[in-house]
Amino acid sequence: MAKKKLNVGMIGYGFMGRAHSNAFRKVSNFFDNEYVPVMKAACARDADKVKAFADTWGYESTETDWRKLIERKDIDAVDICVPNNLHKEISIAAAEAGKMILCEKPLAMNAAEGEEMCKAVEKAGVLNTVWYNYRRVPAVSLAKQLIDEGRLGKIFHYRAVFLQDWTISEDLPQGGAGLWRLDSAAAGSGVTGDLLAHCIDTALWLNGSMSNVTAMTETFIKERTHTATGKKQPVRIDDACAFLAHFKNGSLATFESTRYARGHKALYTFEINGEHASIQWDLHDLHRLNYFDHRDDSIVRGWRSVHVTDGDMPYMGHWWVPGLQIGYEHSFVHQVADFLGNVAKGESTSPTFRDALETQYVCDAVLDSAKSGKWEEVGK
Amino acid sequence: MAKKKLNVGMIGYGFMGRAHSNAFRKVSNFFDNEYVPVMKAACARDADKVKAFADTWGYESTETDWRKLIERKDIDAVDICVPNNLHKEISIAAAEAGKMILCEKPLAMNAAEGEEMCKAVEKAGVLNTVWYNYRRVPAVSLAKQLIDEGRLGKIFHYRAVFLQDWTISEDLPQGGAGLWRLDSAAAGSGVTGDLLAHCIDTALWLNGSMSNVTAMTETFIKERTHTATGKKQPVRIDDACAFLAHFKNGSLATFESTRYARGHKALYTFEINGEHASIQWDLHDLHRLNYFDHRDDSIVRGWRSVHVTDGDMPYMGHWWVPGLQIGYEHSFVHQVADFLGNVAKGESTSPTFRDALETQYVCDAVLDSAKSGKWEEVGK
Amino acid sequence: MAKKKLNVGMIGYGFMGRAHSNAFRKVSNFFDNEYVPVMKAACARDADKVKAFADTWGYESTETDWRKLIERKDIDAVDICVPNNLHKEISIAAAEAGKMILCEKPLAMNAAEGEEMCKAVEKAGVLNTVWYNYRRVPAVSLAKQLIDEGRLGKIFHYRAVFLQDWTISEDLPQGGAGLWRLDSAAAGSGVTGDLLAHCIDTALWLNGSMSNVTAMTETFIKERTHTATGKKQPVRIDDACAFLAHFKNGSLATFESTRYARGHKALYTFEINGEHASIQWDLHDLHRLNYFDHRDDSIVRGWRSVHVTDGDMPYMGHWWVPGLQIGYEHSFVHQVADFLGNVAKGESTSPTFRDALETQYVCDAVLDSAKSGKWEEVGK
Amino acid sequence: MAKKKLNVGMIGYGFMGRAHSNAFRKVSNFFDNEYVPVMKAACARDADKVKAFADTWGYESTETDWRKLIERKDIDAVDICVPNNLHKEISIAAAEAGKMILCEKPLAMNAAEGEEMCKAVEKAGVLNTVWYNYRRVPAVSLAKQLIDEGRLGKIFHYRAVFLQDWTISEDLPQGGAGLWRLDSAAAGSGVTGDLLAHCIDTALWLNGSMSNVTAMTETFIKERTHTATGKKQPVRIDDACAFLAHFKNGSLATFESTRYARGHKALYTFEINGEHASIQWDLHDLHRLNYFDHRDDSIVRGWRSVHVTDGDMPYMGHWWVPGLQIGYEHSFVHQVADFLGNVAKGESTSPTFRDALETQYVCDAVLDSAKSGKWEEVGK
Repeated sequence: MAKKKLNVGMIGYGFMGRAHSNAFRKVSNFFDNEYVPVMKAACARDADKVKAFADTWGYESTETDWRKLIERKDIDAVDICVPNNLHKEISIAAAEAGKMILCEKPLAMNAAEGEEMCKAVEKAGVLNTVWYNYRRVPAVSLAKQLIDEGRLGKIFHYRAVFLQDWTISEDLPQGGAGLWRLDSAAAGSGVTGDLLAHCIDTALWLNGSMSNVTAMTETFIKERTHTATGKKQPVRIDDACAFLAHFKNGSLATFESTRYARGHKALYTFEINGEHASIQWDLHDLHRLNYFDHRDDSIVRGWRSVHVTDGDMPYMGHWWVPGLQIGYEHSFVHQVADFLGNVAKGESTSPTFRDALETQYVCDAVLDSAKSGKWEEVGK
Repeated sequence: MAKKKLNVGMIGYGFMGRAHSNAFRKVSNFFDNEYVPVMKAACARDADKVKAFADTWGYESTETDWRKLIERKDIDAVDICVPNNLHKEISIAAAEAGKMILCEKPLAMNAAEGEEMCKAVEKAGVLNTVWYNYRRVPAVSLAKQLIDEGRLGKIFHYRAVFLQDWTISEDLPQGGAGLWRLDSAAAGSGVTGDLLAHCIDTALWLNGSMSNVTAMTETFIKERTHTATGKKQPVRIDDACAFLAHFKNGSLATFESTRYARGHKALYTFEINGEHASIQWDLHDLHRLNYFDHRDDSIVRGWRSVHVTDGDMPYMGHWWVPGLQIGYEHSFVHQVADFLGNVAKGESTSPTFRDALETQYVCDAVLDSAKSGKWEEVGK
Repeated sequence: MAKKKLNVGMIGYGFMGRAHSNAFRKVSNFFDNEYVPVMKAACARDADKVKAFADTWGYESTETDWRKLIERKDIDAVDICVPNNLHKEISIAAAEAGKMILCEKPLAMNAAEGEEMCKAVEKAGVLNTVWYNYRRVPAVSLAKQLIDEGRLGKIFHYRAVFLQDWTISEDLPQGGAGLWRLDSAAAGSGVTGDLLAHCIDTALWLNGSMSNVTAMTETFIKERTHTATGKKQPVRIDDACAFLAHFKNGSLATFESTRYARGHKALYTFEINGEHASIQWDLHDLHRLNYFDHRDDSIVRGWRSVHVTDGDMPYMGHWWVPGLQIGYEHSFVHQVADFLGNVAKGESTSPTFRDALETQYVCDAVLDSAKSGKWEEVGK
Repeated sequence: MAKKKLNVGMIGYGFMGRAHSNAFRKVSNFFDNEYVPVMKAACARDADKVKAFADTWGYESTETDWRKLIERKDIDAVDICVPNNLHKEISIAAAEAGKMILCEKPLAMNAAEGEEMCKAVEKAGVLNTVWYNYRRVPAVSLAKQLIDEGRLGKIFHYRAVFLQDWTISEDLPQGGAGLWRLDSAAAGSGVTGDLLAHCIDTALWLNGSMSNVTAMTETFIKERTHTATGKKQPVRIDDACAFLAHFKNGSLATFESTRYARGHKALYTFEINGEHASIQWDLHDLHRLNYFDHRDDSIVRGWRSVHVTDGDMPYMGHWWVPGLQIGYEHSFVHQVADFLGNVAKGESTSPTFRDALETQYVCDAVLDSAKSGKWEEVGK
């Protein structure tokens, strides 16, 4: 197959910049697409740091102004890996410049921003996707397949948590390189946009739309030193958030996220209970899917721990042999592989900006409910 | 030690009648108390059935009218194992007759009934206890010990679920021997009183009082044939219930129960996250406690699966040797053992009627919130 | 059903005396047999201790000489719960007196003794059984059922371990009440007769006879103080033993037992790999059976964790409801229940003396091989 | 740091060719070494296939004769990824040409070959390593660290298995691309060299040298169609192998491998029991290490499941954040990273050819014992 090049410009070089760069760099070793990504340029404000980043990852050039990057004719697609408060401006500019866009999640600071962004990409007709990477962990993709095959039957319950424990210390500051997630000016919200957004994206994908929610949030540590000012400032993000929800298919749901659950590093788990079968998944053992099927013979009925490493399971035919697991980083490779395949078809890749906007509506309803103390309808 | 006899009268012979009878019968083989229970009389309306029950378990006599049982001078303690709608009347009568009372959970149909019952036993000064048996599963008792020792530090989160899947079939009727739990006239509520009440009792014991809750309930199957009438009738109990809560110690909580979670038979689990350590427990492996301690050396820090079978763990010195597990029934034996010990001291055994009333207040607030759609304060 | 009495005489009051007494005492509360056991007499050399034991468990009388017990006309069945070196003499005397015999495992000090004992009970025609209790853990009985149904197909592999860690301290003495298992004069062998004998009994039951074995044994601590003399004496039992084996059905096996496996209290596990399906079991979670069936759809194929608590699983219809586990002690209740049922039919209960002799042949071959360094045939 | 180039020539393009190429390609994105690998040439007999392979992975050139590759002046290091029967000839030629060598495991068909190879590399003074990649799974490296720190104390037991189930079908042929492992002419032995060699390498690394072994092997399916001849031919490899061993430190060991263990894809597990602590590891969840420490407080003592994803654990500081797992392929990246670091120091990387020869001695003793039926000393 004759290969076509897709020139990528990366904005940002933090944790997600690395995860995406790794995906662009290795996708064509394992997936055979018509389009192959070319790591054309990396962009960030600090010239030295972005140069070092580009050298490490093999980007051909660097920029220090994202507007310059977007103007470049040799860039086909822009990858946005900067804090949430910059997603809107860059996305709209990139759309107007006719670039394809891969935007880190959450799409925006709130639904209002997200609506503007959707209009921009749709008006410009540019291909787009949002990096809710967990959809493409093979076990999660397999869950989607099992549901679509009707194996679960009518769904009664959905429950998800995303538990971490890294901000329990009062000495941790807010703001700065690794800590912008604690600064509401950069992050918008706390665990709701950072962690629950993942849970919500997966849930909407697997179980359809939500009707309404009731929520509570908490900020356990009220003040933290801000790295920009060196002073104690109020913490305005949510340290923890839990909510109840009704899905439009009649199922009930509970969601919870916190950074104060001692013992959990990044424990994203979900469980879905259907009439005939149930599914469980857990990010700490992301290569397994637990499956229970009530139609099994009663004396040998039990939760099955499926080791999702066989060639007939989603994405796995591209990797190693049964029993040999892949990890976190591969979910990004899969999203790039799908993106490249969809570019050839002229299609955006799910979750698109429009898909991710629905998550934003849920997040807004959750944060509104936490303030109002009432059930809130999921917008639009 | 010279032994004293405690003559017990049992009312009811269903599932709980068996569980309690087994406890009375074997407690003195394993626990050395001053008081030993004597299985004096069993009581139920059906003379043949209660006779058969008494023969199986070794009760010396039978009655078919609980009022007769209560009048008997040779009865010291009355054990109430009948559906919830009869707890109040029998308890008050027994209290007035000066009998000690062991009442099956939940205490009452609602808090108003519970308040009357508390007044009655307290006025009469009779020793009492309510059979929230899970407190005395050794792993749960160990959890209490670890919290009381301060190992967890400040508590941030509590989460509990009680998941079953036995009522998913539409063909299941309501009412009758094994199915009174589906009939609101006999049961009061559905999973809230039957299952969440257990979760709430444990939570109040381990984590203190709750301030307020917001809840949702659902009845998935709207009509079922009633065994009394043979006709389809509306189902008025809750098939599922979930709620968010604030505890008075500042921690956040989520609770959920359902009989529509395919794959779970009686999966009561709880998890508590503290500043320094966390705890998990699971009724399906009730002999284990999971414990995580952040103070462990970082390279060997992980969740510990503690096999709660050693002699220095709660109650376990009375049973076998390390590695050999006990089961569900033993939680009842432990409650009887403690009850007998407390009789010698002239004290009631926790959870007392007064303790169980607090669970009733939470249940009422939960059911109220499910109707109002608002946060409800937990009544005093 | 009119009940018949089976008068039991218990010899010994140690750990096993308690386990068996509990079984006799509760069996008729849960199992409805024509015969009901009557706890007629307990026997041990120390008059005070045996009196206390009899009082705790409800034995009607006591003896201090086992010969007296055997002579009593009101005793139908003798239960032998004394150290291994006394099994032969008591068994033969009891057989000659026409008593049914329930003998604690292992049957004998060695196969030669076992042969004499088999001859005695068979000549006398007395009903007999040996307390290899793990056969009647419901999950293990279920394994047997699955194999007998042909679900596994041809068997390729069998592997079992029994790991403990209670004798690692050099300060532990040998001999005396709880420690006769370390004294070769009383125990015969170490882990081979105490622990591997269990593994072998289960294996012979599930997988048929063995052809030959090659083994190694080790005694890590060479001398321990003997409680009888107060002096350091050589330890003559095996602290650890491992062996390879061929079964007559062509499958290969590995077996290992030790009391030096830090972290394991009583971890008896076995796994069987067949052409179509495999099975795993673990004494530390004895209420579960792991089952893998290759015929499942490939994308949902995995090890199933079967929670063996439903009414259609072996023995479980007699206990509680799905999800509520039983424990170690119940395996003994099941053996008594089966014994009582077989008495009505005039049959011995497996494993009989003859069945247990086969385990003895394997143990002898294992110990012989450990000395000879060669493969040894399993004696007929 | 100024970078130096290390030009790599790869021989073979099968499963291992991919695994190693991926490691060379990504190592410098995550590890900062003075030397960076350059993927200079790929070599295999089929010109089209090797061209496709080179294009996929970014090799600059191709060769169809390994002798040509070795002669090239622009090649610094040769990676040998061909079947076992070619390791010796290529290694010796590469050594004589002064090339560094990275040789796939097992080192050789037998110890005699391995001795020649060791002499060749040592005479030539070329840096070398053998791809026993599991040493560098972070959890396994952590196990080594814990042992070296003395946390386990005196070691009593070592047990390892490597279980697969992919050759149970009689229809599977022997020989050819993916199936040379079933052909003794290409593979030498079956599971012994393919799977047990991994277990032995790890064991020697963690627990020191072995003294002697006794073994059994089995070939369940006696004839398979050979892809070269299209005819049924005897299968001469071992389908299964188990052995007992003594280590020189006094500990006992059991090892087993098979391709007939239904339900296991690549289940390599090991467990080490020491005086104070024990360790377990499992390839199916390779990112976890189970650790038990007897010195923990008794009431919270249990097996700890350590999620080996934190920055202070071996190699993990180079990857993502706590909770986000890596997979199988990363073990190869780590070996390349270490190799590059050692090149700068002028040192070979463990396991060297000499280290791997010790594994070969054990394999020979195992296969000898399986024939002789006796304990065999592990050759010098």
